[in-house]
Amino acid sequence: MSITEKSNISRKLLMIPGPSECFQEVLSSMSEPPPAHYMDDFVAIYDEVITLLKQVFGTRGDVFLITGSGSAGLEASITSLIEPGEKVISDEYYLKFLQAIGAKPIMLQRGRGEAITADMIEKILRREQDICAIAVAHNDTAQGLTNPIDEISEVAKKYSVLLIIDAVSSFGGIPIKFDDWGIDICSSASQKALSIPPGLVPIAVSRYAWEKIMNRKNPIPSRYLNLLTYREAHEQYGSWHPTPFTTSPTLVKALLVSLRKLMAEGLNNVYERHAKTAMAVREAVKSAGFKLLVMDEKYSSNTVTAVRWPDGYDYRKFWNLLYRKYNVMIGNPPAQWEAWPIFKDSFRIGHMGRTAMRDYVLSTISAIEKALIDINYPIKKGVMTEMVEAILT
Amino acid sequence: MSITEKSNISRKLLMIPGPSECFQEVLSSMSEPPPAHYMDDFVAIYDEVITLLKQVFGTRGDVFLITGSGSAGLEASITSLIEPGEKVISDEYYLKFLQAIGAKPIMLQRGRGEAITADMIEKILRREQDICAIAVAHNDTAQGLTNPIDEISEVAKKYSVLLIIDAVSSFGGIPIKFDDWGIDICSSASQKALSIPPGLVPIAVSRYAWEKIMNRKNPIPSRYLNLLTYREAHEQYGSWHPTPFTTSPTLVKALLVSLRKLMAEGLNNVYERHAKTAMAVREAVKSAGFKLLVMDEKYSSNTVTAVRWPDGYDYRKFWNLLYRKYNVMIGNPPAQWEAWPIFKDSFRIGHMGRTAMRDYVLSTISAIEKALIDINYPIKKGVMTEMVEAILT
Repeated sequence: MSITEKSNISRKLLMIPGPSECFQEVLSSMSEPPPAHYMDDFVAIYDEVITLLKQVFGTRGDVFLITGSGSAGLEASITSLIEPGEKVISDEYYLKFLQAIGAKPIMLQRGRGEAITADMIEKILRREQDICAIAVAHNDTAQGLTNPIDEISEVAKKYSVLLIIDAVSSFGGIPIKFDDWGIDICSSASQKALSIPPGLVPIAVSRYAWEKIMNRKNPIPSRYLNLLTYREAHEQYGSWHPTPFTTSPTLVKALLVSLRKLMAEGLNNVYERHAKTAMAVREAVKSAGFKLLVMDEKYSSNTVTAVRWPDGYDYRKFWNLLYRKYNVMIGNPPAQWEAWPIFKDSFRIGHMGRTAMRDYVLSTISAIEKALIDINYPIKKGVMTEMVEAILT
Repeated sequence: MSITEKSNISRKLLMIPGPSECFQEVLSSMSEPPPAHYMDDFVAIYDEVITLLKQVFGTRGDVFLITGSGSAGLEASITSLIEPGEKVISDEYYLKFLQAIGAKPIMLQRGRGEAITADMIEKILRREQDICAIAVAHNDTAQGLTNPIDEISEVAKKYSVLLIIDAVSSFGGIPIKFDDWGIDICSSASQKALSIPPGLVPIAVSRYAWEKIMNRKNPIPSRYLNLLTYREAHEQYGSWHPTPFTTSPTLVKALLVSLRKLMAEGLNNVYERHAKTAMAVREAVKSAGFKLLVMDEKYSSNTVTAVRWPDGYDYRKFWNLLYRKYNVMIGNPPAQWEAWPIFKDSFRIGHMGRTAMRDYVLSTISAIEKALIDINYPIKKGVMTEMVEAILT
């Protein structure tokens, strides 16, 4: 059996918190022989990608593409900007990258489902001296919530600390205003709301970040995840070879297809579509008696919904029915519990990029409804799907 | 104009030292919706890829896949294994990665086109104390030569130093014997003889490398390019989520298609095909009066040929004619000279993976012949192509 047959038979609809389903035009573009990663054919594609990425970031400053997973962007942010011994207010996403370079993370303490607020940050800034940066996620994928970066950025400015943002699962689905909010480094990933395969990291860098980097006492202990390498290469030979290391022209082309689609739809329409789809998912699960994981719904995410799993029902059976009987893959597989027990309390539905649309959400909610009935969860058939249809028509 | 039209109109045949042309089956596979990067659909693909990669490496030990450019593999090798202050015999490929982590590289000094020999290494090992490792390329892409790793490995064993090998442009085209040669870390890249797009790094690790890593005095200053992260993740949750960071299922599927093709052809046949194609290219350029860059032809590479450019002829015109008039892209574009003047002395032809075949080489040599006639280089029409046909029929 060829891989094609295999993958077509058993493939599941990806309603996980990324990778999301790829746009059809993206899939088609990847079957074309790609150009090299340098010279004019490629430079034209790359330059247009960067121009469009700047619009999504909301910046007129520097934007680069790193070849790697989203985590490569988080590490590049920390390793380029932060020095050993420096204090950084951090959420769980940046923690291990800060530890790896010998920085001093100050972990944010918060309840399950609680957003990071400006108040929470300000309390630490009042208490602790010499904090150099705040490093937090924009969209907290694990908890299905969006932190109020606009408010956090006000505090960052007030105390003159740098602001590092993980926009892996918000970029292209939830508005980001890099320049207006005064973010210093913001990185994303290709496989979330951009709906292309994983492998590319868009990253934006402010002039304050460059100042800090240029005034480091210790050299950056990396070349691959070193933002200076990217800037210097682009300055030195960007006219014909725009990245310092071989990037993936197949994925860069796919990204251009995706970004052009976003622009054709209009960024505000794209954000509105995500907001409306997310609302439909939330109302549907609430109509079945579920509680959201996010404590204050005003912070609920527009790209991923985390739902509390109620005691007394068989989660393993529920997840596996969805996966094996209904061919829909949602987040938090039971296999995950052993490595990350925190995911035992909830399931997650991704709705980003291509899947932030009525048909995908309706199929998913319909499958969830059926699986819930299969496990004897008390729900009247049609309650959840009717809610989706009412909101997304 | 859509990107599809654009890329089809202006795209050049890639006869550069990578990326090479992708296999047709690889291109087709990438237009299928990919699975997620975890759970059974993907684990089956991933496990088969690792099994086949081990055959190409010639190892029964650990092999991982890093999402990134070939340089990510070089950095992961150095950053995981080497500590600040440690002395490493290095070629130019590993130099900057060693410098970035504060190691002490001992740069190999050699003439242009000269291979790294066991003698050259042994002289340094006799002279210098406390050398911890040797880090060199297997196939030196810049000079079109293959270093005798089998002989170098004998010296490495004799002096008990670790051996780190860059197999970026040899893997899948030139034999590697990781276990037999006693290599400690060897990394490659997806876009060379594997003929898939850039973005994945296969990397093999010996038990001696692990011993050294486990006995480090300083922690590894990275998580993303830290081989321990890969091993721990695979041990902890490899049964359902085989990589620590989101890998690219599209590229992993493409890699499986490529590896299955290599195995169906038979690895020895694949290596033989590369050897024969390379010989045809060498004989063709010599028949036109050119000299190879490699000083001793026994070290000439089977995946890339570097040819000395003779004084008195217009190289810029030659390269651009090939690129713009004949739609063939060879290595060393004139644009490169400003950033890397060393490339002024030669041009390079890649012949690896899909392009290590008669049709590709014949088209390329035919175009080179025409471009040479166009610039009034003294060559009789048909001399070069006849040589290719004589060898590759």
